[in-house]
Amino acid sequence: MAKNDDGSRVRNALRVGDELPDPGSAPVGPGKKAKALDGLESAGERLSALQEALFAEGVGGGTRRVLLVLQGMDTSGKGGTVSHVLGLVNPMGVRYAAFKKPTAAERRHEYLWRIRKQLPAAGQLGVFDRSHYEDILVPRVSGLLTADERQRRYAEINAFEQELADAGTTVVKVFLHISPEEQLKRLKARLVTPEKRWKYNPGDLEARSHWPAYQDAYADIFEKTSTDRAPWYAVPADHKWYRNWAVAELLIETLAGLKPRFPEPDYDVDAELAKLKGVGVSA
Amino acid sequence: MAKNDDGSRVRNALRVGDELPDPGSAPVGPGKKAKALDGLESAGERLSALQEALFAEGVGGGTRRVLLVLQGMDTSGKGGTVSHVLGLVNPMGVRYAAFKKPTAAERRHEYLWRIRKQLPAAGQLGVFDRSHYEDILVPRVSGLLTADERQRRYAEINAFEQELADAGTTVVKVFLHISPEEQLKRLKARLVTPEKRWKYNPGDLEARSHWPAYQDAYADIFEKTSTDRAPWYAVPADHKWYRNWAVAELLIETLAGLKPRFPEPDYDVDAELAKLKGVGVSA
Repeated sequence: MAKNDDGSRVRNALRVGDELPDPGSAPVGPGKKAKALDGLESAGERLSALQEALFAEGVGGGTRRVLLVLQGMDTSGKGGTVSHVLGLVNPMGVRYAAFKKPTAAERRHEYLWRIRKQLPAAGQLGVFDRSHYEDILVPRVSGLLTADERQRRYAEINAFEQELADAGTTVVKVFLHISPEEQLKRLKARLVTPEKRWKYNPGDLEARSHWPAYQDAYADIFEKTSTDRAPWYAVPADHKWYRNWAVAELLIETLAGLKPRFPEPDYDVDAELAKLKGVGVSA
Repeated sequence: MAKNDDGSRVRNALRVGDELPDPGSAPVGPGKKAKALDGLESAGERLSALQEALFAEGVGGGTRRVLLVLQGMDTSGKGGTVSHVLGLVNPMGVRYAAFKKPTAAERRHEYLWRIRKQLPAAGQLGVFDRSHYEDILVPRVSGLLTADERQRRYAEINAFEQELADAGTTVVKVFLHISPEEQLKRLKARLVTPEKRWKYNPGDLEARSHWPAYQDAYADIFEKTSTDRAPWYAVPADHKWYRNWAVAELLIETLAGLKPRFPEPDYDVDAELAKLKGVGVSA
């Protein structure tokens, strides 16, 4: 199990490089399910404690916050990650937003408009289930974005993320990397299990048929938008237990790196204790 | 432990009546901590399953949703309830909103304006940590609301909650009922524990000094606004284990009563399965 004290072990290992790791691999941390589940349990306590401190810092006037961006092909486990990893922390400190196909009303604004509305407040852990990166991926694969327009969007997104960083937001971008074989299994499972059918969308097959184009689009995104202030991590996601463990550890390392601090009281503790003794309530 | 199959056992027992239960009591369900903690663990599974079904129903076009309103004196455990009870379910399906003292910008709108902005969407479980009821409580105790204005607000709030019910929202209003003695202990604990000091606010003592006035204001609220479509429940909250158990069971009974259903697919399952077999991806 990764020690979060030594800083960036998981972050260093999973940061996107020239080649993505195998979707079925476990490049850092536990290589077996049982150990990963144990690790996730202890991750819950560590993540909760760090998140509470960040939240408290925000109440005390701090402006720092964290934004986790989840991207990946259909069935790659964005929803499962939210449930199993973000479900470990207090809902008070989590701000979750899913970005579906833009509505007619949303399309009347520029593409970052709806994204900005969902940014986390001070002390919060924001989670984007899909994000502004869909606004490059989908039009690119559909052939609706010229090379020039694409370059402009990269520049806009980098400027947007720089602005977030300047305002105290640590952005953690995670690509949940599954194989097409695993996706096939999961799509089939959604179709044959009545309680999972609502998760299936016939449009998923359309996106699946463009698999190589999406992988190319992602590779280009990583090259253009993985920066030190907002890096991309590739998390092998064919094994759900590894995916959950890895995203939890990425968040823990990120939060631990911020060293969030409970704020000093802006009142006189002894004076309040004395007043408290004097308060008698006859209810 | 309460069976949620038999409908409304916990709801019936905790619905506000002429007299509130003792804050240290356990009027229904487990009377001991260990049993309540076991119950809460199993509640997690039941609540998660029901919430997922409601969420799925919403994805399938359903409009039903649930709104949990949490009220209570400072330290009564609104935050703890969110962490321990709402923390049991998938963050995707939870919409949490805290209502603090209105900001200058909020005060330029009528008091329900900021409340409406935070209402849950279809399939969501909304949670209000304080609510529009603060807009009766605080001005009433401060002497800023005439009896006429108060009656008007009751009428407005009842009309608002009727509107919510008509639109498919099941409202569950919970008063976390603590004793002044327990509050004293909790305030003291916040002051003497450095990591808890951020939760303490000198203004808490001001509200505490008006304890009987707040209890009167709550009694009046229960009388005027506890309706069949949006009932008030009084949860004894001196014991955190009882409070968590009781709120979880109230939610379970409420959700079970809705009988949320996974939607029927709006596509041809067999046709999709056949298409799936035909899709080969060379990644």
